[in-house]
Amino acid sequence: MRIGVIGGGQLARMMALAASPLGIRVHALDPAVDACAGEVAPLEVAAFDDLIALHRFADLCNAITFDFENVSAPALNELAAVRPVRPNPLSLATAQDRGAEKALFARIETAVAPFAIIDQPQQIAAAAVSVAFPAILKTRRFGYDGKGQINVADASLLEDAYTRLGNAPCVLETRVHFQRELSLVAVRALDGEIRCYPLVENVHVNGILSLTLAPAEVTPLLAAAAERCARRVAEALDYVGVLAIEFFDVDGQLVANEMAPRVHNSGHWSIEGAVTSQFENHIRAVAGLPLGDTAAHGVSCMLNWIGDLPDRNRALTVPGLHWHDYGKSARAGRKVGHATITAPDRSTLLRRLHQAAEVLDRQAQIAPAIARLL
Amino acid sequence: MRIGVIGGGQLARMMALAASPLGIRVHALDPAVDACAGEVAPLEVAAFDDLIALHRFADLCNAITFDFENVSAPALNELAAVRPVRPNPLSLATAQDRGAEKALFARIETAVAPFAIIDQPQQIAAAAVSVAFPAILKTRRFGYDGKGQINVADASLLEDAYTRLGNAPCVLETRVHFQRELSLVAVRALDGEIRCYPLVENVHVNGILSLTLAPAEVTPLLAAAAERCARRVAEALDYVGVLAIEFFDVDGQLVANEMAPRVHNSGHWSIEGAVTSQFENHIRAVAGLPLGDTAAHGVSCMLNWIGDLPDRNRALTVPGLHWHDYGKSARAGRKVGHATITAPDRSTLLRRLHQAAEVLDRQAQIAPAIARLL
Repeated sequence: MRIGVIGGGQLARMMALAASPLGIRVHALDPAVDACAGEVAPLEVAAFDDLIALHRFADLCNAITFDFENVSAPALNELAAVRPVRPNPLSLATAQDRGAEKALFARIETAVAPFAIIDQPQQIAAAAVSVAFPAILKTRRFGYDGKGQINVADASLLEDAYTRLGNAPCVLETRVHFQRELSLVAVRALDGEIRCYPLVENVHVNGILSLTLAPAEVTPLLAAAAERCARRVAEALDYVGVLAIEFFDVDGQLVANEMAPRVHNSGHWSIEGAVTSQFENHIRAVAGLPLGDTAAHGVSCMLNWIGDLPDRNRALTVPGLHWHDYGKSARAGRKVGHATITAPDRSTLLRRLHQAAEVLDRQAQIAPAIARLL
Repeated sequence: MRIGVIGGGQLARMMALAASPLGIRVHALDPAVDACAGEVAPLEVAAFDDLIALHRFADLCNAITFDFENVSAPALNELAAVRPVRPNPLSLATAQDRGAEKALFARIETAVAPFAIIDQPQQIAAAAVSVAFPAILKTRRFGYDGKGQINVADASLLEDAYTRLGNAPCVLETRVHFQRELSLVAVRALDGEIRCYPLVENVHVNGILSLTLAPAEVTPLLAAAAERCARRVAEALDYVGVLAIEFFDVDGQLVANEMAPRVHNSGHWSIEGAVTSQFENHIRAVAGLPLGDTAAHGVSCMLNWIGDLPDRNRALTVPGLHWHDYGKSARAGRKVGHATITAPDRSTLLRRLHQAAEVLDRQAQIAPAIARLL
């Protein structure tokens, strides 16, 4: 069996590594000839909107998935006529549009930050009245890793912010005061079975995920609320594959921030920290296979390597540290790898994080993880 | 960094999958154009004794290792002049020759079955006197998976057995009455550090490994004896990489059977059952990196799929079951894949083995594992 992944980044790469033992071959399609999945999977080099190439690619494969959300939904729709596309184009289209996404959260009775849609300049005035400030203006489409959003301190700055975002359709959201950021990775099988990984805690820096602690320390009630939300989203969309939902923890209540219709950076810890990784479970779901156990064994801290890699050889001296080099060249702001430190319990993990902070030049990055475990 | 693996079978394949996250690329060399490592690593198709191809291959790589022991030791010696070969050719040569292997075990004061060398027909009579029967006659070289050996019930049958083995240099061993078969996988780093995986219990059928239970239930004394043996072997050979030693448990005493100078089938459970897999640790050692933690988390049972694969989709319904398809075509006696069932404790593992026996047509294979856990 062959699964075609539109996109050839690190997510496709990790899918390919997880698919191989299942007897499933991942093929990737990416416009970049040096897309990093190409090192472990056959790579078709083509633009994401090159319909002829996409069809040729689909012909090679038994099912199609994608590793990022800015794939063309109409193109996926076309492919869906000839091959199963999982998750389906509706799921992608919903996640691509912050307006549709918020409407979905509202429909399934999940709390979101107060918001208003600004599709046209005429809607600015009404939005400025209906949404409390400080707020964030986000483009409805093509946002990721903090891109396509601007903080707006008060109503007088809204028009300028809208112009700076290119007059694109936007969502204006009240800035939520949260204690922490949590996310849930879930997977839904072709037969409708849903499994959830434990809720995890994330730390973002400059809008980019810096670290994940798994599992998060949460009440059973909070965990149940997050799972209920994921379950309803997945069912509403007839979703197949891995799905991630980011939440804010606001005084012990969950407020949904956004969803990602794919394997997610906050699920990377599952490669070593869970019985079945998110990548294997995504491949299992897309291939129509039964899902694997999503339970964590022990506790984990995933550290993203952004811009460049720290010293690998020093890192590997840390017990329980698992290294992930994506095979990408260094570039400011680019996710070039990650490490997951696993441990049987929180006190051991704390000790290992201290060791990591000693040997790596990433003290500032590791400090918030240490603070959370103290 | 590139590591060249001579041999392109499932061991090279699993090395390649383990190397990728470390930022290390495995290249494989194999005479078979469809060698299964070729699906995940660049494959150089050449005969193992094609010195020109081997040199070209070595030029591509920073270090050389191998995935089976019937590589030509003189050829490796030549490559060792231009690239680090790990483990070194002496280690390979020792493991290739049951005579040299037994001499090494004797030198490091590890018990072996009483034996005699028969390099020439003239030595048969003396061997028949010095070794108690029933015995096993084994060729000194090129044996694996029960090949190249014949049971010899009494002295009168020895000459015939020797003829049937082609008058090749042989070792005649007294047949050991053992309670169980154990093995130890160890890894030695370039700086001399040695780490051992827990001792495991193996069940062979027709000379081929059928299943491994990890860890074995053994006394600390037995575990220490096995580790001492592995440590001494590795130090005596200035070994670098993963090394496996098979033992018989004879009334609570270890008798060494043989060593394998490579990652070993009885270590496959470590992919999911240990903090760091044998494949990653072998790559780390060959690359000169620090070793990873060899501790097990929970308990595991590895089941070899020999000849053909059972039904994957049914297998994946078993909780904690991890599937490994090597991408090889079915053929009698061929190792085409394995599955490792992991569990937090022995009673859960027992339950999962019962489930596996229910859904797969491998009851006879699974029964000995169940019997050992009862």
